[in-house]
Amino acid sequence: MKVLAGEAMGVAEGLLIAAGTPEAHACIQADHLLEAELRGHPSHGLQRLPRLLDRIAKGLADPRTRGAASWNRSGELHVDGRQGLGPVVAHAAIDALVERVGASGIAFAAIRNANHLGMLAGYVDRIARTGQIGMALSTSEALVHPHGGTRAMLGTNPIAIGIPTGAEPFVLDLATSRVSMGKIHDHAMRGAPLPDGWALDAEGKPTTDADLAKLGSIAPFGGAKGYGLGLAFELLVASLAGSAFAPQVHGTLDATHPVNKGDLFIVIDPAQSPFGASGIGAYLDLLRSSPPADAASPVSVPGDRARARRQNALEAGFDINDRLWSDLTDRLASSSSTPLAIRELQT
Amino acid sequence: MKVLAGEAMGVAEGLLIAAGTPEAHACIQADHLLEAELRGHPSHGLQRLPRLLDRIAKGLADPRTRGAASWNRSGELHVDGRQGLGPVVAHAAIDALVERVGASGIAFAAIRNANHLGMLAGYVDRIARTGQIGMALSTSEALVHPHGGTRAMLGTNPIAIGIPTGAEPFVLDLATSRVSMGKIHDHAMRGAPLPDGWALDAEGKPTTDADLAKLGSIAPFGGAKGYGLGLAFELLVASLAGSAFAPQVHGTLDATHPVNKGDLFIVIDPAQSPFGASGIGAYLDLLRSSPPADAASPVSVPGDRARARRQNALEAGFDINDRLWSDLTDRLASSSSTPLAIRELQT
Repeated sequence: MKVLAGEAMGVAEGLLIAAGTPEAHACIQADHLLEAELRGHPSHGLQRLPRLLDRIAKGLADPRTRGAASWNRSGELHVDGRQGLGPVVAHAAIDALVERVGASGIAFAAIRNANHLGMLAGYVDRIARTGQIGMALSTSEALVHPHGGTRAMLGTNPIAIGIPTGAEPFVLDLATSRVSMGKIHDHAMRGAPLPDGWALDAEGKPTTDADLAKLGSIAPFGGAKGYGLGLAFELLVASLAGSAFAPQVHGTLDATHPVNKGDLFIVIDPAQSPFGASGIGAYLDLLRSSPPADAASPVSVPGDRARARRQNALEAGFDINDRLWSDLTDRLASSSSTPLAIRELQT
Repeated sequence: MKVLAGEAMGVAEGLLIAAGTPEAHACIQADHLLEAELRGHPSHGLQRLPRLLDRIAKGLADPRTRGAASWNRSGELHVDGRQGLGPVVAHAAIDALVERVGASGIAFAAIRNANHLGMLAGYVDRIARTGQIGMALSTSEALVHPHGGTRAMLGTNPIAIGIPTGAEPFVLDLATSRVSMGKIHDHAMRGAPLPDGWALDAEGKPTTDADLAKLGSIAPFGGAKGYGLGLAFELLVASLAGSAFAPQVHGTLDATHPVNKGDLFIVIDPAQSPFGASGIGAYLDLLRSSPPADAASPVSVPGDRARARRQNALEAGFDINDRLWSDLTDRLASSSSTPLAIRELQT
């Protein structure tokens, strides 16, 4: 079915508030899940909410804390998330970085013990809208096999990069896995076979059966290079956040363990550069207008399609799984919370 | 033919000194070219030297300068390379970053107007050996087409990441292109066809003819994801170094233009983290011993093979193109420089 963004926001916020989340934190978390829906990534959207509510109910996620942050050195922020909500802890860290970076030019936050960040694009988009460059990295449970390997040994280890362009920010957000585990689950639900090369089964044999792949591992994107990048990001985050390595990570996909993965944000301020960057917008337009291989598919810049999709979804609503929506609205009806007024979202 | 590292180092250093390069700078530049040979990347090795000597002779490269560096903010170093040798300018910048990062935790250097950096692995290896994390990015002439595009619009935009592990550093070094232009030239020289999907001709049509590909463009690695990363790196470097975008870049492959690409180094100090990283070496060993798809090819960690190759080449020498070696030794014989004694390289 189709729901409007404001309606979905009210339901998600209401459920979080009913679970004991302060209104400001509920707004950040709900908005973050909704952004994933609007940009066309339902795997990081509202389907994550029931599990998050379970985690709160079991005391595995603390919706009240923003984490404990301390500046270790002038450009180095360490954050113990204290099992707080991922987006809440991350926003607090980003606010601190954005304020600091005017003096230092570059600063980073290493975060551990914060719950799942969700889609990374929103964070670097937010940073880029302050005129600064943002990079975001996060680790996860072991889901990806090494290039030439057969066992899940790495997280999907996504990276997002946001860069001010003078117009809308450049926003790249990608996992270093060939596809997301969400996409494997989606194929399994639909009974659709996987394309060759996506996944291995639990014994490490190539499979196109999505149900077998769920118990196995996903390929890194781009062969040895994507594996190398995913591994570099795994080591980078663990080096700075002191977080667990993929085979020991828990708590981003389950409702039984405290979370122990790590997150890393790097913010760089290009604004006071004596070198002065210019022409980024013109260069991106040159790319967009360069001759495509298929005349029906113009060359695209990362973020363009998600932005168009978001705008359309804000106006026309977005598709949501019927059962998920019933589950959420039933939960809200049986909770003690007063449903919130429908909110206007920023367009 | 095979040459010994010490012999090649003496020839390269001698040629650079004969061209007016101070001995300390000749040592850095020659060592950097030699490292590429030892690690099995001759495309970034001594074959670059004749062009570099031409650039020096024409005044397009100034072998005497280390560039002009200034700290703009506490973590932000801006370097005008003043057309200096890439490795010489980069080493000066890295030394400054490594010294600064103890106080700031993180620092970056944006460099413009420095000649070709060559292979990036050596820089981040050097940083990692000081106990710090190093990232290196560099832009280049337009050689890569966008995903879904047909024209060379991006540089090969490599990234290197070096991370201390307790044992030998983790060193990743990859171009965001599917292959290097050097590999295309190598196929052309041997008259060997290119695999499908590597390259397009000048009209943007897929080709397996290496001679046609030389006039066309190379694919990004890993499809849309590799394109996105290459583009993000292009924008990141240009934003901070104020350097040219790929279609306007000159001077890394020719001997006719001043160089106008950009370079970026980021150094992060994990040593004083209150979170304390540990277990990186054990995790990497777990990866190496995880079951491989092919029993004859154990799972490898980026840097392992290059390190083994380097060690072997230090002992047994390395292969070099006969004509290249004759050219270099002839040039040296006809120069006024006194040949240097054969040097012992670090093992």
